[in-house]
Amino acid sequence: MGKPIIYLFEQLNEEQVETIRQAAPEYIIIDSTRKSPQMIEDDIEIMLGWNADLGQRLLASDTSQLKWVQSISAGVDMYDLDCFWEKEILLSNSSGIHSISISEHVLGVLLSEFRGIRTSITNQEKQKWTRNNISYRQLSAQKMMIVGTGHIGQQLAIFAKGLGIEVYGVNTSGHPTNGFIECYSHKNMSRIVNEMDIIVNIVPLTDDTYQMYNERMFLAMKSGTVFVNVGRGASVNTSDLIQALYAGKISFAALDVFEEEPLPEDSPLWRMDNVLITPHISGLTPEFKTQLLSIFMKNLKQFLTDKTLSKNKIDLRQRY
Amino acid sequence: MGKPIIYLFEQLNEEQVETIRQAAPEYIIIDSTRKSPQMIEDDIEIMLGWNADLGQRLLASDTSQLKWVQSISAGVDMYDLDCFWEKEILLSNSSGIHSISISEHVLGVLLSEFRGIRTSITNQEKQKWTRNNISYRQLSAQKMMIVGTGHIGQQLAIFAKGLGIEVYGVNTSGHPTNGFIECYSHKNMSRIVNEMDIIVNIVPLTDDTYQMYNERMFLAMKSGTVFVNVGRGASVNTSDLIQALYAGKISFAALDVFEEEPLPEDSPLWRMDNVLITPHISGLTPEFKTQLLSIFMKNLKQFLTDKTLSKNKIDLRQRY
Repeated sequence: MGKPIIYLFEQLNEEQVETIRQAAPEYIIIDSTRKSPQMIEDDIEIMLGWNADLGQRLLASDTSQLKWVQSISAGVDMYDLDCFWEKEILLSNSSGIHSISISEHVLGVLLSEFRGIRTSITNQEKQKWTRNNISYRQLSAQKMMIVGTGHIGQQLAIFAKGLGIEVYGVNTSGHPTNGFIECYSHKNMSRIVNEMDIIVNIVPLTDDTYQMYNERMFLAMKSGTVFVNVGRGASVNTSDLIQALYAGKISFAALDVFEEEPLPEDSPLWRMDNVLITPHISGLTPEFKTQLLSIFMKNLKQFLTDKTLSKNKIDLRQRY
Repeated sequence: MGKPIIYLFEQLNEEQVETIRQAAPEYIIIDSTRKSPQMIEDDIEIMLGWNADLGQRLLASDTSQLKWVQSISAGVDMYDLDCFWEKEILLSNSSGIHSISISEHVLGVLLSEFRGIRTSITNQEKQKWTRNNISYRQLSAQKMMIVGTGHIGQQLAIFAKGLGIEVYGVNTSGHPTNGFIECYSHKNMSRIVNEMDIIVNIVPLTDDTYQMYNERMFLAMKSGTVFVNVGRGASVNTSDLIQALYAGKISFAALDVFEEEPLPEDSPLWRMDNVLITPHISGLTPEFKTQLLSIFMKNLKQFLTDKTLSKNKIDLRQRY
């Protein structure tokens, strides 16, 4: 067995790598994005980022030394959490990094639609000055339901309130949360959903949230509801959503995540007038690496002290 | 001379017309959008909205009874204010109606650009899933200068602050205004403009603001400044703006108003990658008519009492 390895799937600059090296002098640091590494995979003890192929090999290996994975996403549904639990591998996410960018994205897609900007952009492509195909809707004073009241949901609630939006929340138990007028449990969501103008899905993917937006949920909504998904694609039954869009139950959908990504070329969603598609970008931000490193370094120091994590540790039983 | 006429250039519903009729039983009400009116033009005493042809005829007529025009816009630069002054015709604008919609429009065009939504919309037209041509910028914590600190500027300042933006203002004298960290006078604007990330023009068109965004002003800005114009097109020297866009002084411009409207088909602005064109829609709102009527009715009641106006009266000497 060689020296333990910290394996980076995320390209960092020299200065950032040096910061890690100084904090963990006993470790070899391998930046997989810069060179094809010569190493014994089993020596990897810490991973920043995740690669499904290598990850699966390590989880399957009896001699792997993997002890901690720092995820670069907020959602952790792509990890085999039962296996992490069994093998006592720690997992931390990067929740919090994406809060501002996702919140700005949600308000951006809503205002693009409500202010006729989306139509103006396609009109501009044709050098066409017209107001005829544009309609307007005021965002201020609308009722918004944010499904998922964690880091991101709370940040969005703050911004939305600043724009005069009335903000309601949905979480596991319906517990009151700062910034929300009222919170409902997942179980009670379908009872209240028809009072909302806008539904924003930010919830992580779990057994409870898998395909929670299905025919039954869309039927419970009022006609003309606006739907934004920046959570996970698999929380939505796509064909039920398409039906709801055709039927006018959903007047407009802004979708950043999909059951299958990239969204298949033959998906009818691409060409629907009342759908705005973005390619899973809502969490991207220019400050991403700096903030990711900040979480990683806090956890690294704690891990080297007592093999625990101090920030964004995933509860492998609760699954988020 | 017949009965005095209230002449409507804005289509109102039956109920709204009836409200006016009950408040002013001595008047004939003519809705120009519904029927071609049979009338003696000189009998028009009150106009809701404005039509340049008819307006010019009335201003030129020695026997015109025109006493008050309620404008449907906030800006009044299209009126011959000297002539109004000379003939003692009252003028009121609809300032305040547009505040929320213009504020939402400004944040919408900024977020469309900063979050890569504008590029995603054009990618969607080609059924193209890609992040390669998208870049991101955080709106929160940017420095925004709002030029014009009236109704609309103040509303935008409230919303912008709610999104974590740092808001500075420019007005005639540089007087402090609620919601702005600091205000500068028009005269001092070019000295401070290089500290700003975003410049939003909302100012009415006057002799002072005509072509105020010219080569000199753009040169004073820092490289990469974002420029939004929802004020008046003639505040901008368009060819200087185009140069500033080519030179990178302005990294992105969102333009809702133009020196010539509709924007001519051969304008290079149409095809510039870093320009978003909207067809003078920032003030449009579904609640427009209701709010317009509310201003008009307050003024009508006052006018019938003592021939003065109680709301949004234009100072014909100050010109706003």
